[in-house]
Amino acid sequence: MKFARYGEPGQEKPAVVDHAGQLRDLSGVLPDLAGAVLGDLPVVNPDSLPLVMGNPRIGPPVGNVGKLICIGLNYIDHAAELGVDPPKDPVVFLKATSAIIGANDTVVLPRGSTRGDWEVELGIVIGKRAKYVSEENALDHVAGYTIVNDVSERAFQLERSGQWTKGKSCDTFAPVGPWLVTPDEVGDVQTLDLSVDVNGERVQTGNTRLMIFTVAEIVAYLSELMTLEPGDVIATGTPPGVGMGHKPPRSLSPGDEMVLRISGLGEQRSPVAQDR
Amino acid sequence: MKFARYGEPGQEKPAVVDHAGQLRDLSGVLPDLAGAVLGDLPVVNPDSLPLVMGNPRIGPPVGNVGKLICIGLNYIDHAAELGVDPPKDPVVFLKATSAIIGANDTVVLPRGSTRGDWEVELGIVIGKRAKYVSEENALDHVAGYTIVNDVSERAFQLERSGQWTKGKSCDTFAPVGPWLVTPDEVGDVQTLDLSVDVNGERVQTGNTRLMIFTVAEIVAYLSELMTLEPGDVIATGTPPGVGMGHKPPRSLSPGDEMVLRISGLGEQRSPVAQDR
Repeated sequence: MKFARYGEPGQEKPAVVDHAGQLRDLSGVLPDLAGAVLGDLPVVNPDSLPLVMGNPRIGPPVGNVGKLICIGLNYIDHAAELGVDPPKDPVVFLKATSAIIGANDTVVLPRGSTRGDWEVELGIVIGKRAKYVSEENALDHVAGYTIVNDVSERAFQLERSGQWTKGKSCDTFAPVGPWLVTPDEVGDVQTLDLSVDVNGERVQTGNTRLMIFTVAEIVAYLSELMTLEPGDVIATGTPPGVGMGHKPPRSLSPGDEMVLRISGLGEQRSPVAQDR
Repeated sequence: MKFARYGEPGQEKPAVVDHAGQLRDLSGVLPDLAGAVLGDLPVVNPDSLPLVMGNPRIGPPVGNVGKLICIGLNYIDHAAELGVDPPKDPVVFLKATSAIIGANDTVVLPRGSTRGDWEVELGIVIGKRAKYVSEENALDHVAGYTIVNDVSERAFQLERSGQWTKGKSCDTFAPVGPWLVTPDEVGDVQTLDLSVDVNGERVQTGNTRLMIFTVAEIVAYLSELMTLEPGDVIATGTPPGVGMGHKPPRSLSPGDEMVLRISGLGEQRSPVAQDR
């Protein structure tokens, strides 16, 4: 099943995607795709649900995200691109949940930004609470998968003092969606193709088989540190081809359009703007 | 005014603290101390409200915290203690909001923890949305102040790969409270004494006059990066005397008790335990 949320920010309604790719309203079945519902998603026949009319905004496919956890340097070929050794432990950081937007919403670079960058990532949506879970049981706690763009401002991230947070948590720096796709429909999550096009040019490609730490390893590892709650989202790292990995380095400009794709998870189409 | 929340985790009710230090129930006036309410806190006569009977648990004084933002290395004497240069820009990182507990709840070190540490910090509670606010107007967006213990696991923070998150976001690593104290009652927020006692021994002391970046500077700076929402909490950095700054370094052990105090903001009394 493919789930989605549609409507204006903060007022999204739940939906499923039918075989023709159309949204079917799910509000008669559940109030929202958020919290405990994610641990027990309904199996429904989309054709039995009302068709969503018009062309509404697609919101993030999960509401009330409690934590947006990111894994850094998790592709063997991306670490090579940056000239760093693969980490022995997963590199973990947090993005502010206030950065989350829908899959086709505008990414707005903040004032002073000069080095905006893209990072296509496989997103894990937690369905059931996880604390000290084993790698063997980790996937039982996953509701499904989605696309996350870990938008980054490299000058803020790397040239100012301290941690990466400043370049990762700006408003609109976390497009999530379009869909939450259940594991049965995704199949083998470690063989998915990922890509980013900017203004129609392919700039980033990868495959989840080159992850250093697998989805199951990441969920188990994080659950040793903190409780993963239903609705938490984990971005699992990015493959080679981010702007700062290009020679010469590339950055986003107002007017650009990013298109992100992951096999079976749909696509994001994000215009880029900048605050003045 | 001093506000508080009491009751079991997730079911806290709002209260005010009367002149005798007793809790008075505020649920007849507002549903919770969370969200937009924080931008327009009521002025009430505590004696007109029902006395809270018994000895209930004190919860964090703010509900639904969206972001828990921390400033690192923000005391001139703490930077000196660690032998590092004062940062030119505020050092910013995030703690998972799932780490938040009440002022007297038990801090539980995770499995494998060997270097648990304390950090008393002045906490800012945001009352009104802030984006691109000036230093001059920054304090208009503050609902009040509280104590935050930025509990840290130094081995997780510093000896594993990457960012600080692993040692900062463990469950129970963010005692907040006991009270949310309004700015008029705090007075000059840049002259507050801070201290930590462990098992009755004074281990950490400081005064907010030695902050490198003031409260107003921090709010303005962060608002350039991301929208600060009502209910967001900012921990403003810790003075000298954290465990790793002692010679020889000190760590928390199960059975310890931390007592944190800040002038006018009350005290936290946190027992320490460990998951096995």
